[in-house]
Amino acid sequence: MKSQLSHLDADGAARMVDVSTKAPSARSASARAVVALPPVCVRSLRAGPGSPKGDVLQVARIAGIQAAKRTHELIPLCHPLAITGVAVDLRLVAARIEILATVRCAGPTGVEMEALTAASVAALTVYDMLKALSHDLVIGPVELLEKTGGKSGAIRRRRSAP
Amino acid sequence: MKSQLSHLDADGAARMVDVSTKAPSARSASARAVVALPPVCVRSLRAGPGSPKGDVLQVARIAGIQAAKRTHELIPLCHPLAITGVAVDLRLVAARIEILATVRCAGPTGVEMEALTAASVAALTVYDMLKALSHDLVIGPVELLEKTGGKSGAIRRRRSAP
Amino acid sequence: MKSQLSHLDADGAARMVDVSTKAPSARSASARAVVALPPVCVRSLRAGPGSPKGDVLQVARIAGIQAAKRTHELIPLCHPLAITGVAVDLRLVAARIEILATVRCAGPTGVEMEALTAASVAALTVYDMLKALSHDLVIGPVELLEKTGGKSGAIRRRRSAP
Amino acid sequence: MKSQLSHLDADGAARMVDVSTKAPSARSASARAVVALPPVCVRSLRAGPGSPKGDVLQVARIAGIQAAKRTHELIPLCHPLAITGVAVDLRLVAARIEILATVRCAGPTGVEMEALTAASVAALTVYDMLKALSHDLVIGPVELLEKTGGKSGAIRRRRSAP
Amino acid sequence: MKSQLSHLDADGAARMVDVSTKAPSARSASARAVVALPPVCVRSLRAGPGSPKGDVLQVARIAGIQAAKRTHELIPLCHPLAITGVAVDLRLVAARIEILATVRCAGPTGVEMEALTAASVAALTVYDMLKALSHDLVIGPVELLEKTGGKSGAIRRRRSAP
Amino acid sequence: MKSQLSHLDADGAARMVDVSTKAPSARSASARAVVALPPVCVRSLRAGPGSPKGDVLQVARIAGIQAAKRTHELIPLCHPLAITGVAVDLRLVAARIEILATVRCAGPTGVEMEALTAASVAALTVYDMLKALSHDLVIGPVELLEKTGGKSGAIRRRRSAP
Repeated sequence: MKSQLSHLDADGAARMVDVSTKAPSARSASARAVVALPPVCVRSLRAGPGSPKGDVLQVARIAGIQAAKRTHELIPLCHPLAITGVAVDLRLVAARIEILATVRCAGPTGVEMEALTAASVAALTVYDMLKALSHDLVIGPVELLEKTGGKSGAIRRRRSAP
Repeated sequence: MKSQLSHLDADGAARMVDVSTKAPSARSASARAVVALPPVCVRSLRAGPGSPKGDVLQVARIAGIQAAKRTHELIPLCHPLAITGVAVDLRLVAARIEILATVRCAGPTGVEMEALTAASVAALTVYDMLKALSHDLVIGPVELLEKTGGKSGAIRRRRSAP
Repeated sequence: MKSQLSHLDADGAARMVDVSTKAPSARSASARAVVALPPVCVRSLRAGPGSPKGDVLQVARIAGIQAAKRTHELIPLCHPLAITGVAVDLRLVAARIEILATVRCAGPTGVEMEALTAASVAALTVYDMLKALSHDLVIGPVELLEKTGGKSGAIRRRRSAP
Repeated sequence: MKSQLSHLDADGAARMVDVSTKAPSARSASARAVVALPPVCVRSLRAGPGSPKGDVLQVARIAGIQAAKRTHELIPLCHPLAITGVAVDLRLVAARIEILATVRCAGPTGVEMEALTAASVAALTVYDMLKALSHDLVIGPVELLEKTGGKSGAIRRRRSAP
Repeated sequence: MKSQLSHLDADGAARMVDVSTKAPSARSASARAVVALPPVCVRSLRAGPGSPKGDVLQVARIAGIQAAKRTHELIPLCHPLAITGVAVDLRLVAARIEILATVRCAGPTGVEMEALTAASVAALTVYDMLKALSHDLVIGPVELLEKTGGKSGAIRRRRSAP
Repeated sequence: MKSQLSHLDADGAARMVDVSTKAPSARSASARAVVALPPVCVRSLRAGPGSPKGDVLQVARIAGIQAAKRTHELIPLCHPLAITGVAVDLRLVAARIEILATVRCAGPTGVEMEALTAASVAALTVYDMLKALSHDLVIGPVELLEKTGGKSGAIRRRRSAP
């Protein structure tokens, strides 16, 4: 069974998979993270012209973009990659913030982890910005939506509820 | 409304809240993250004596511990804190991995974000270790369970389903 | 002469000065950085309701706050410090952006370098955000305005022109 | 107006510009930073054979080289780049230190920010090394001198006074 | 003599060597580090089924892999490189732990320093994990075993005793 | 046996030991690293007035000081500590470079790993600076010489040969 997990060798030893012989190709991945908000946070963000919504989302967006660049420092067996583009979109939809992170690179491995990390850290930053109002924020689902490029070709996943 | 969000000043400008006058006190926080696994991953982890379960969980545990130390680099407005202890516990329960991260420090602000970051990065690392089998892993809920210390005293939250 | 430079020993060898016996005290420092803008940048930032001014300044503000936390990684002989507050204020005044960074900590050494680093990195980020319009931005003066706390007491400097 | 700033989309949301389709090319950039010194610092650096000048400049040079490698961590929307060379030259000229930083890479975007960051951090390090003598050092101008490579071709700027 | 040291220019100024014109090629390097263990550590690691050996070595292995990715942050004049694979093997042999680190990349410079850094940090982590038992661990020799790729071709070194 | 290793719990799970209840105290640690040099390197460093010795040692010294500050990022289970002083001394003795690193802090745990990390990274930097001449440099022994402070009191070790 173990041999199916590329990050472990036959003895269970962790390794960074050798991708030396894989040709670089254009790759992208999109991931989604949701932050469910308690009513006090929704009210604050929807308070109208003077609401902090734009500022909260801008800080979270920047945190997400920066986190994409640090993915290989956070996830032990990820390769360092020359990321060529990151976009993190945040929207307040009903009582939740929907985060969509898209990462691109031209390299020998995919950028799923970069997109998932960007979305996760943007969600954690939303939490940090709003926790003075309540600790009842809940993050999730965090999931891959799409990936393109590489030998395995495109993957497209259906988003979980909500 | 804005003034309730301590990370934004009256004009919406982001800031790191001044905690210079808060006395340091012993603090702890526990957070939980869940990774829902597709059947192929459950089968691999439950494959018996030769299964990669222990190795996958050990790598994720270390990633979570290290991430707690980097929280202030990832979340723009978090204070750097002298963390005095981190434990990250991972368990395979039914078709999901349950992650519990507990962080301690003696400082002027709480460690909720450190616990949530440790749990999130451990979850992302589980994803990375298993994604060769499937991309149908979904992270969430990620939530605070408990926090102690500080002026506001202890908070205990009920865990979300599942 | 050399012995007056605390970061070099009698042989010119670099060292991180031993502050083990200095009592921690409340300290603050404020630094200023100016970015002189060419007309095309001023016009863009003053374009009215749809202008990018707020967004450019918010990104620079966050970069400055984060840089304060990394000062000891950038400046080789700086001590790591438990910063307790950072505020970075940016204003468009005539044809320049005025940046004021204030950093606080309770520790054995001052936070001048943290304030100067926050102001400098905020200025570099303004440059990065506007360089698609022109490369004729010029950063400076970058200077200390004030510092409080520590044995040497308060220092207040007059700001340079412009 | 906003659309001219490539780091902001039509709604003012920050993004890391997608350079996936730009062909890598050889690029270089040179930036200059000046540190104006008060007389006590000039006297110390010019004290003759035993002066700390060489040591101060060597520490600042190394800090500048290392900072070039961290530009994408400091400036939120900068791409990570595979830098292929960095030189930081520091000279004591009259009552100021003149810093010239040159960075090279083969990639899809320019290295202006890397050169400006190297020069700025070298200047901050000079400040840190000399601040035991006086806080009257002033950094600036910090400016781009030249850039080559890329679609827009070479740019050469005249240096500001002094 | 100085000109033979590529990291110093004719005046002794440190620089990151310009490799802009070197064609990227497949490269690998292997390094070895030894940790000599006092008897109390050997007994603990050899205690049979319940021994901590596997866990100690797994933590050290992950630390070594992660350190390879940070080599250019630690060694001032190293180039940032897009590492394509890292394996760190640790074995308990008689009264010492033998560490073998192998790093691969496709780039313009070799990965000797990455392999040596991975081996060294794995050794330091073994030390950290066992120091509660004794401080009589000694690290060394740490040395290059082999390097391939690049203009200078393959180098193979004989391992030192023990 | 396992319970003697404080970094592993009863199940072998890695953890950052909880030091919340340990009182901070003044602590120091000194570590030594040796780099054995092949003749070509010794000749280059001993070449007289124009020799690169001072520059090579200064770069390595700075790298060692900076590495002490990053120990908790490199060694997974180390606590972040507010280091209050670092000195790294390098000397050319016969055919080897002797490195002595001393680290101080006021905290709840010792700084042995910080001293060992500073010495190791200084040694790796010496290697990097000289590897254009030969790859026959060998690092080791790297060992603790002394530690003071904390409940266990002072430890003094005899240095290994050579």
